[in-house]
Amino acid sequence: MSGGKRRAAGDALFDTVTIIGLGLIGSSLARAIRREKLARRIVGCDANAGVRAVAKKLHLADQIVSNAAAAVSGADLVVIAVPQSANAAVAVAFGGKLKRGAIVTDVGSVKQAAIEALAPKLPPEVSFVPGHPIAGTENSGPAAGFAELFQGRWCILTPPLGTPASAVAKVREMWRRCGMQVETMDAAHHDRVLAITSHVPHLIAYTIVDTVAALESRMKGEVIKFAASGFRDFTRVAASDPVMWRDIFLANKDAVLEMMGRLYEDIALLQKAIRNDDGKLLHRVFTRSRRIRRSIVQAKQA
Amino acid sequence: MSGGKRRAAGDALFDTVTIIGLGLIGSSLARAIRREKLARRIVGCDANAGVRAVAKKLHLADQIVSNAAAAVSGADLVVIAVPQSANAAVAVAFGGKLKRGAIVTDVGSVKQAAIEALAPKLPPEVSFVPGHPIAGTENSGPAAGFAELFQGRWCILTPPLGTPASAVAKVREMWRRCGMQVETMDAAHHDRVLAITSHVPHLIAYTIVDTVAALESRMKGEVIKFAASGFRDFTRVAASDPVMWRDIFLANKDAVLEMMGRLYEDIALLQKAIRNDDGKLLHRVFTRSRRIRRSIVQAKQA
Repeated sequence: MSGGKRRAAGDALFDTVTIIGLGLIGSSLARAIRREKLARRIVGCDANAGVRAVAKKLHLADQIVSNAAAAVSGADLVVIAVPQSANAAVAVAFGGKLKRGAIVTDVGSVKQAAIEALAPKLPPEVSFVPGHPIAGTENSGPAAGFAELFQGRWCILTPPLGTPASAVAKVREMWRRCGMQVETMDAAHHDRVLAITSHVPHLIAYTIVDTVAALESRMKGEVIKFAASGFRDFTRVAASDPVMWRDIFLANKDAVLEMMGRLYEDIALLQKAIRNDDGKLLHRVFTRSRRIRRSIVQAKQA
Repeated sequence: MSGGKRRAAGDALFDTVTIIGLGLIGSSLARAIRREKLARRIVGCDANAGVRAVAKKLHLADQIVSNAAAAVSGADLVVIAVPQSANAAVAVAFGGKLKRGAIVTDVGSVKQAAIEALAPKLPPEVSFVPGHPIAGTENSGPAAGFAELFQGRWCILTPPLGTPASAVAKVREMWRRCGMQVETMDAAHHDRVLAITSHVPHLIAYTIVDTVAALESRMKGEVIKFAASGFRDFTRVAASDPVMWRDIFLANKDAVLEMMGRLYEDIALLQKAIRNDDGKLLHRVFTRSRRIRRSIVQAKQA
């Protein structure tokens, strides 16, 4: 996993890193930066007083503040880790206070929307490196974070044309030292890949859980009791943060609706096979699915 | 979990138990019966020579045979643990050889179909107790089994009217001592509950995995790489045994198609909300889903 040579302790990548938004991702990154000594100083910022109180109690950063403008002054790297709908407001709040030459990155799941929201609000003398660490759990909030969250997972960077290579390299190195494999791709391609690997599965999981919720109350209790039969895997996916996911679907609307269309066609085929007692078709599809699962296990992403 | 009083070792429920089909469930049950000393003698039976060879190597039973008729002669309990489409043929093969007063049970996921296939083939002097231990993993075959598979999970028995209470009690006690909580319900109700908790989730998981498989090869590689973003939970569900699942969908056709209809309506609502930028509706549904997840965690079925 470790691609580069071992670095001496204290070989900080940044003097000051400011993390805005101390939820699952922001708080995990704060922990990983501290563990890997990637910054001499960490400033945490969150608009929510309850989140700040937990973050202080956990000593997640050297300084924890509520005001984004105060948080970024003096920062070499600013990581925006808020729900995507808050991106633009955050950038407006701190844009003018950024240090000349600072790097700004984000962690959002939809990259075209992140670029549209953030890039126009940032001053020209800073570098913006859009990023997406593909890691998470069903839990949210600062107490749910842990330094190992990123270990062995992939991070995708989608720098627009003209982003300084040195800024991309520093953000890449940060995630690499947090344990991630880092890849660069076009933002539009990223959004299509994530629509099918992540957004559509979440939409379906949310729907199945909601369909069950609508069933009569007697059956509802039984559904929960007998969840081990398959349903529970969907509810795990459907337990992720509601605000984050609302924002993702609205931000990646086109790709999600396109992939849903493909999925509908395939569901219709299987449904027809069941109606027509076509066991051959079912067996063929199920065998193919099992092979894909094995590829994922082999790729160590299971 | 342990509802009854502690029994002395060797307090066997049965003299001889025959298990027909030594896959994940059959081989796990053989292990659990031996661990709990629920039978003085276990006979294993499988039509597949490769399965028998593995089962012999693992010493899963006192005797391992290929012939169902030979396997059941002398058995007090016969457990049928084959794919559901093989039920009727198995019962025809051994029906006449059953001991007077023997109990027959099965482990299939669709109970009405199991009753229709098995009940007419069994002689009147034996008792049939249809059962469904709700436990499993993505793996299959005799080597994948383990005695703890049933621990803390639910087992549903669906005895038709007129089944002797003493036979139901013995099968219930067997599963209870394997670590399960046992409930009795009507077969038709079982099939509807399982359609939504298990069969429809599996159908959707198989479909998503197959939709991905159909995407162009470049994206396919990326989907596997970035599977940690949600997709992998679906592939886990979609890795289950293809023959078993083909049989389940064909056997529970009506309930599956009805539940798919309900699901379609709910997917359409969410899709429309995305298209119309209705963030409120999305947030409401996602918050509700999270609550259901929490109920499942509280019910210790996560």
